[in-house]
Amino acid sequence: MKTHTDYLWFTTKRRQEFVRITDEVRAAVKKSGVQEGMVLVSAMHITAGVYVNDWESGLIEDFQTWLEKLAPAGLPYKHHQTGEDNADAHLKRTIMGQQVILPITHGDLDLGPWEQVFYAEFDGQRRKRVVVKVMGE
Amino acid sequence: MKTHTDYLWFTTKRRQEFVRITDEVRAAVKKSGVQEGMVLVSAMHITAGVYVNDWESGLIEDFQTWLEKLAPAGLPYKHHQTGEDNADAHLKRTIMGQQVILPITHGDLDLGPWEQVFYAEFDGQRRKRVVVKVMGE
Amino acid sequence: MKTHTDYLWFTTKRRQEFVRITDEVRAAVKKSGVQEGMVLVSAMHITAGVYVNDWESGLIEDFQTWLEKLAPAGLPYKHHQTGEDNADAHLKRTIMGQQVILPITHGDLDLGPWEQVFYAEFDGQRRKRVVVKVMGE
Repeated sequence: MKTHTDYLWFTTKRRQEFVRITDEVRAAVKKSGVQEGMVLVSAMHITAGVYVNDWESGLIEDFQTWLEKLAPAGLPYKHHQTGEDNADAHLKRTIMGQQVILPITHGDLDLGPWEQVFYAEFDGQRRKRVVVKVMGE
Repeated sequence: MKTHTDYLWFTTKRRQEFVRITDEVRAAVKKSGVQEGMVLVSAMHITAGVYVNDWESGLIEDFQTWLEKLAPAGLPYKHHQTGEDNADAHLKRTIMGQQVILPITHGDLDLGPWEQVFYAEFDGQRRKRVVVKVMGE
Repeated sequence: MKTHTDYLWFTTKRRQEFVRITDEVRAAVKKSGVQEGMVLVSAMHITAGVYVNDWESGLIEDFQTWLEKLAPAGLPYKHHQTGEDNADAHLKRTIMGQQVILPITHGDLDLGPWEQVFYAEFDGQRRKRVVVKVMGE
């Protein structure tokens, strides 16, 4: 059994930004030497997420508009009484998901034709991290 | 360490359809011979999901009504400027979830009394796939 | 390869209650002796969830207010024609998520600075269970 751990670091320019990370995840899988197994890709901060969906800029805008409707910024959240202003970021990441696990088959990510992995930042402009944990043989 | 990979194929009759797949996942676990481990069940298309919940037709209708409210079809989504008409399917699958991981204990799925695994199709009527990846010993 | 299985039991006092379980999950990891791997933490009941987010009481209230808005109790759900009254609990758990997988590195949970694991109960006041499955080496 083999394991391998990588950390991806992000400092986005905007507060909210979706970044494609499929290539970085694939590179970690290659580095691990694992032929059959799984890779966990998980946000280590609670105002960011990781999800799989389409690499199409219109749909990414649709996701962002939709999240703003379901979990708006600027409401009088209780969390803001602590001095924070990012309660909406915690809610938005909950909708998009914290993490994905991808299968590894024949030494590569076993993805469908349109699957791309994204880092979803909802409170950026500072250094934040994603863990990539590979396990298999 | 053992791994085993199966693919389940679906061509639903309706655009949106939820299909129970607990038995197919259990069959993959049995075939793998894994006694202790985990099985990943993950949609390979980005307009479908996999989730665990109740096998009760009323609740399944409630889920579908609810998803239509949270992520309606027919809005002027940006994604549709590419010629697509299924932005809502991408959003609905995000709510339901792309995948689940189930524990394997004593050679079988380790499920609670009401847990059933479902494939959730939101843009069907064509061939689509779920990967089942078993890992353990 | 090593595996280890624990079950956490809950009987919450209120119908809806979020319980921090980071320490219990960490204890299971220590008991397993796994140095590098993953741990699955998954609700075994379909009206409860497991999620990672902030240990801050204001934000926990925000989550609960928000879930009530997105998936209200008291609507005429079809599921209630079976005699049940908890359709909203099934929907709320779907938003929060059924499960998380956490990486294990150097024999401990590999968590970001604010990550805490929670059990989210939406139909409590009875005995319910979470499975903790550790796998690694």
